Amino acid sequence: MTKLVECIPNFSEGRRPEVLDAIAAAVRGTAGVTLLDMESDRDHNRSVLTFIGEPEAVKQAALAAAAKAVELIDMEKHQGEHPRLGAVDVVPFVPVSEMTMAEAVELSRAVGKELWERLRLPVYFYEEAAASPERKNLPDVRKGEYEGRKRDISDPKWMPDVGEPRMHPTAGAAIVGARFPLVAFNVNLDTDRLELAKAIARKVREKDGGLPAVRALGFEIKERNIVQVSMNLVNYHKTGIHQAFEAVRAEAEKAGVRVLGSEVVGLVPLDALVQCADFFLKLENFKPAQILETRLRG
Amino acid sequence: MTKLVECIPNFSEGRRPEVLDAIAAAVRGTAGVTLLDMESDRDHNRSVLTFIGEPEAVKQAALAAAAKAVELIDMEKHQGEHPRLGAVDVVPFVPVSEMTMAEAVELSRAVGKELWERLRLPVYFYEEAAASPERKNLPDVRKGEYEGRKRDISDPKWMPDVGEPRMHPTAGAAIVGARFPLVAFNVNLDTDRLELAKAIARKVREKDGGLPAVRALGFEIKERNIVQVSMNLVNYHKTGIHQAFEAVRAEAEKAGVRVLGSEVVGLVPLDALVQCADFFLKLENFKPAQILETRLRG
Repeated sequence: MTKLVECIPNFSEGRRPEVLDAIAAAVRGTAGVTLLDMESDRDHNRSVLTFIGEPEAVKQAALAAAAKAVELIDMEKHQGEHPRLGAVDVVPFVPVSEMTMAEAVELSRAVGKELWERLRLPVYFYEEAAASPERKNLPDVRKGEYEGRKRDISDPKWMPDVGEPRMHPTAGAAIVGARFPLVAFNVNLDTDRLELAKAIARKVREKDGGLPAVRALGFEIKERNIVQVSMNLVNYHKTGIHQAFEAVRAEAEKAGVRVLGSEVVGLVPLDALVQCADFFLKLENFKPAQILETRLRG
Repeated sequence: MTKLVECIPNFSEGRRPEVLDAIAAAVRGTAGVTLLDMESDRDHNRSVLTFIGEPEAVKQAALAAAAKAVELIDMEKHQGEHPRLGAVDVVPFVPVSEMTMAEAVELSRAVGKELWERLRLPVYFYEEAAASPERKNLPDVRKGEYEGRKRDISDPKWMPDVGEPRMHPTAGAAIVGARFPLVAFNVNLDTDRLELAKAIARKVREKDGGLPAVRALGFEIKERNIVQVSMNLVNYHKTGIHQAFEAVRAEAEKAGVRVLGSEVVGLVPLDALVQCADFFLKLENFKPAQILETRLRG
């Protein structure tokens, strides 16, 4: 298998189709990269692209898209509901296969360096690429937004990680980093007792002492007259789909409630599914390279 | 996802590296095809190639490899332990993803037609592509081998499915068909009682009234002092990995024996693993297209 990394950059433009087309074209025009998705929000005036490929190709696509955004977006005129620091607001890299987090961090650092050198965007590193704990969380790094950071960027607290302490005159600053792929996974329970779903969510989520890297909420699904424990697994290497499933099932069973089914929302890394088969079948020595389809690359 | 088909042709040459290199080069030189594996046996004087790709590309690769084999292999001089009917002895096509068995059968028929038209190889269709039940099993079709078929090919019983009833003067005849991917799956039991493994194998295999499309045998694994139920799932759409696993586990539990683990030997279609995750997690509405890696093709 080949090293694969995903990049999900957020740009501060969600209204002008010609700008979005130009940014998407920069990604599509990079050999070895596949644009998987593009979503824009008019109210947020913001768009999110998702693309994937080998690290060097993904780096080139990210830089090409960023160059277009710097050229075509003017933060002096930008308005939108969503907080933002610049035209190339956030650029996270997610290791997908055959790639360690350390390599994704290294990639994000290299991209950050070039954003400054080529485009004169000062760069902050966040999440796994953060240089200090205060810069790990995105909302903390983005505090004060574009307008505030223009004033305080020379403050030692807001010194960028790459580049000089001055905002790009029209594109502001960029936040670059690496994070694990997120798996959105819901478990449906055969009851209409919302308080049970909420109690199980509290029991299994990290915040309240549950499973590591799990966020969870309890919801009603009114049209089916059932409830759901809705989870985000922010690092499936720490807590996998099968572990989340088993934890919810165990808690439901204590309350005498049956699991009806589960659902994976959106995309899921192959690895996370193989982990499940692995766990339930007690597989010995299984390698993803044994999956026929993975043999088509590399 | 793209339509993908695997081709596993068997050629009657396992000794001369220059011939094998030429056949492999014909496959490698076909755009859109990936050669996954090549194995030769000197005693059998026979080689098996495995390659994969979209149907049209796989067809071209199979025909290019067959042309090389017809050019370089002389059945008049061929000796080997393994039964064979010709230089291009057997050419099975296996639907891997987004492809029905009917489509694989159609592909095998098209290849058979061209083997006659381009190379003057008379062709027999077998397995899912067989035109009559007597020609379904490979050993039945190959009866008499190259030497015998030269004498009896004009007998109505041995009339080829494509082409005239005369063997190619140096390459004999070819057997072409379509079959399901085979999954080799073993379940290890926490006991040294070989007779239990054998009894469970009998219980679960199709031949003795067990699960459809399952072949099974019981073995000892001496170095671990345990026994194993070793299975071939010849159509995982009929009996999947999880069903085979659950059946063996249930039988073992009746005898008070625990399942230690299981193993997938060699390659496995992604679909077969997704089926397992699906089953154990009771997934609702999951589609293989949700797997990140599958989004890279098509």
